[in-house]
Amino acid sequence: MAAAVLPTPQVLAFDVFGTVVDWHGSILREMAQRYPQVDGDAFALAWREGYRPAMEQVRNGTLGWMRIDALHRRILDGILPEFGLGHMPEAERAELNRVWHRLSPWPDAVAGLQRLKKRFVITPLSNGNIALLTHMAKNAGLPWDCVLSAEVFKAYKPDPAAYLGVADVFELSPEAVMLVAAHHSDLAGARACGLQTAYIERPQEFGAARPKDVSPKPGNTYHCRDFLDLAERLGC
Amino acid sequence: MAAAVLPTPQVLAFDVFGTVVDWHGSILREMAQRYPQVDGDAFALAWREGYRPAMEQVRNGTLGWMRIDALHRRILDGILPEFGLGHMPEAERAELNRVWHRLSPWPDAVAGLQRLKKRFVITPLSNGNIALLTHMAKNAGLPWDCVLSAEVFKAYKPDPAAYLGVADVFELSPEAVMLVAAHHSDLAGARACGLQTAYIERPQEFGAARPKDVSPKPGNTYHCRDFLDLAERLGC
Repeated sequence: MAAAVLPTPQVLAFDVFGTVVDWHGSILREMAQRYPQVDGDAFALAWREGYRPAMEQVRNGTLGWMRIDALHRRILDGILPEFGLGHMPEAERAELNRVWHRLSPWPDAVAGLQRLKKRFVITPLSNGNIALLTHMAKNAGLPWDCVLSAEVFKAYKPDPAAYLGVADVFELSPEAVMLVAAHHSDLAGARACGLQTAYIERPQEFGAARPKDVSPKPGNTYHCRDFLDLAERLGC
Repeated sequence: MAAAVLPTPQVLAFDVFGTVVDWHGSILREMAQRYPQVDGDAFALAWREGYRPAMEQVRNGTLGWMRIDALHRRILDGILPEFGLGHMPEAERAELNRVWHRLSPWPDAVAGLQRLKKRFVITPLSNGNIALLTHMAKNAGLPWDCVLSAEVFKAYKPDPAAYLGVADVFELSPEAVMLVAAHHSDLAGARACGLQTAYIERPQEFGAARPKDVSPKPGNTYHCRDFLDLAERLGC
């Protein structure tokens, strides 16, 4: 309903972890290959679980500005002993930490982005740092028009400065920007700043064994199954 | 010679105006189409000539931080009366100012970047703002891996913060980054920060009637005819 009265957006800004790429499945596969003795499912969840509190420490000033690469590494160092990998040497830790640079896209992501790119400016708006997002795009073939990140605005989502930063960069009103994400909290942050929002169902974000509730919530401009569905809805 | 002892760079950062795109020819063509009564050659040169002093005012603090779009517009407003276009209405000025978002690439640029992209991270490092560079890339088919700009670092080249910013984003030593540019002053700024440098000959930057001296100067890692030559030299 809301979509009918709102203008067509000009820029689509995408959340990345969970929305564009499958962090859980990617880490699971990499762990199975490198450390088959470890419960990769529990490992992936533990690593990701440290993310929110770590970012919160940056947001509230307990930690100074720090890239996600550094936050991922702090969390990794913390969980390795719990999984019997406390002995892992430095170079191996650094290499494992880069798994976040090579996460695999969801099956519809590349094709969907290619369709959306024909009509809109498409950019990530992720808390991931620029290098991480750039390496990921190169590795996965994500056809971004540019790479925006919390790092550009020195503000982690859901800080309004991140959402409004995208509109400011393109000198657009907030409603000319649409945030695309699989997380309601992220979309709520964007909506509070006046952006349009598209929710993307990613029922397997936490693994096939742990289906996520993806039922529609009010307030979003669109509720879509995946990026192809979003492209369809936006007339691409 | 220097190239033999330096490591292969990982990131190639490109100056854009004059190096990747032909600002003079593009503005000339657009003026011929829209305002055939105006001397497009003189107009393009006058517009570009205001660029350096305007940026200098930002660098020395006379002007606060301002995007190139705004600087281009200030210069445009200044020169329009000189060319008998002082009556131009606001919407038309805004539209003409966007010519910088749709500059045409040099004939070798897209093919060269595609080759270089296979082996290196390729990014602009331009004083142009993010939106300008993003629209330009979309319009011209420039296959950047990400879009870095003075706007990200809030520092205009040749401020060291711009060159070192690229190395910092990728957590690389400066010598793992190579600046590619058609201007010796830009390359000198990068070299002073420890970056590798590649000079690109663009003899027609100021128009076919005004050939630029493109003879080699010492100090650059490479001196190349164009991007295809650079790709060749870098083994792509």
